[in-house]
Amino acid sequence: MNKQRGILAIISGFSGAGKGTLVKEIFSTYAENYSLSISATTRQPREGEVDGVQYFFMDKPVFEQKIQENQFLEYAQYVDNYYGTPKDFVFDKLDQGISVILEIEMQGALKVKEQYPETVLIFVTPPTAEELEARLRGRGTETDEVIASRLARAAEEVVYMDKYDYVVLNEDGKVAECAAKVHHIIETEKKRTMYSGQLINELTEGLARYKKGE
Amino acid sequence: MNKQRGILAIISGFSGAGKGTLVKEIFSTYAENYSLSISATTRQPREGEVDGVQYFFMDKPVFEQKIQENQFLEYAQYVDNYYGTPKDFVFDKLDQGISVILEIEMQGALKVKEQYPETVLIFVTPPTAEELEARLRGRGTETDEVIASRLARAAEEVVYMDKYDYVVLNEDGKVAECAAKVHHIIETEKKRTMYSGQLINELTEGLARYKKGE
Repeated sequence: MNKQRGILAIISGFSGAGKGTLVKEIFSTYAENYSLSISATTRQPREGEVDGVQYFFMDKPVFEQKIQENQFLEYAQYVDNYYGTPKDFVFDKLDQGISVILEIEMQGALKVKEQYPETVLIFVTPPTAEELEARLRGRGTETDEVIASRLARAAEEVVYMDKYDYVVLNEDGKVAECAAKVHHIIETEKKRTMYSGQLINELTEGLARYKKGE
Repeated sequence: MNKQRGILAIISGFSGAGKGTLVKEIFSTYAENYSLSISATTRQPREGEVDGVQYFFMDKPVFEQKIQENQFLEYAQYVDNYYGTPKDFVFDKLDQGISVILEIEMQGALKVKEQYPETVLIFVTPPTAEELEARLRGRGTETDEVIASRLARAAEEVVYMDKYDYVVLNEDGKVAECAAKVHHIIETEKKRTMYSGQLINELTEGLARYKKGE
């Protein structure tokens, strides 16, 4: 058998759901299975940032050319800069049998799924609205106004939940458990019949000689 | 939140794929999560068999009445006797949050899936036709003729594989690993968005008060 192709998984969730910590936990605990995707951006590199490590840095005309050529899985514009996920980087990893986890917002996630239906959409959420608010307040770094605007956004975003393939609870202090759940989802997706074409062909050929009357 | 409903999973595979050993391993390792389904049958109880333990024993007219009333998930006739899976027993377990694993053949499995699309179909197979033959021979209990007829049946049954949701390899001497894979598939299925309706409703309600302008 050939090497199993990697899975493209997208993790989304409300601001305050703990996506960043979760993704770090997955990459550190299951390092050999996953690759982070490296985004392309038109913003200037900051002190110490290296092209191809934190980001692929590129000029606006280059980025716009790549948009034209459909070279991004998804992209978005924030303030004056573009951010995007280069397809070739992601697909190279998948071909190598490495799964790629993207942490992107819901509209981008649904667009990727539309284009690549085998993408696995995972929605990560605290168990209750109260806990989401408590976490945002607990950070202690944001003004009431910012917290209110994040909660207002969550109230809008909740309508996207049922478009996701899986909903995973990220409970307080249980990030390792949540990471294990996501890892098992991705390992399980690899066992979907659509990835067993070669095995089925080999078994069909191997069994043919046992057929009666042949 | 209410208790998560159990998952109805069906395990099928060629004769010699190791389904029986696998199912035993799952039930002993993850005992608290699963219930075996108890079949109904019209055959006579053997010495020591107890009604409601090994089987629900019933007379033919009773069984046929239950067929009419659509009380079986699936049933089949072997030689002169009926065997069937009573719906109420299975659904009671699922309602209690206990997953039920049925070990049934492919045509029955597909009929259950047609009626209950949330059923998870898992096809268990050795990696190659050669290994299947070696296992059947290795049992040392069957005549060449019986082995030939089982392999001939496998050659027919292989066409059902791609109707299954998952294909799981059961490699020699790795039954614990195979049981863990099946368990993770079932745990993962519980995280499918369709089972999160209540959570989504609660979050939607809980977040509503944060909406802007409300």
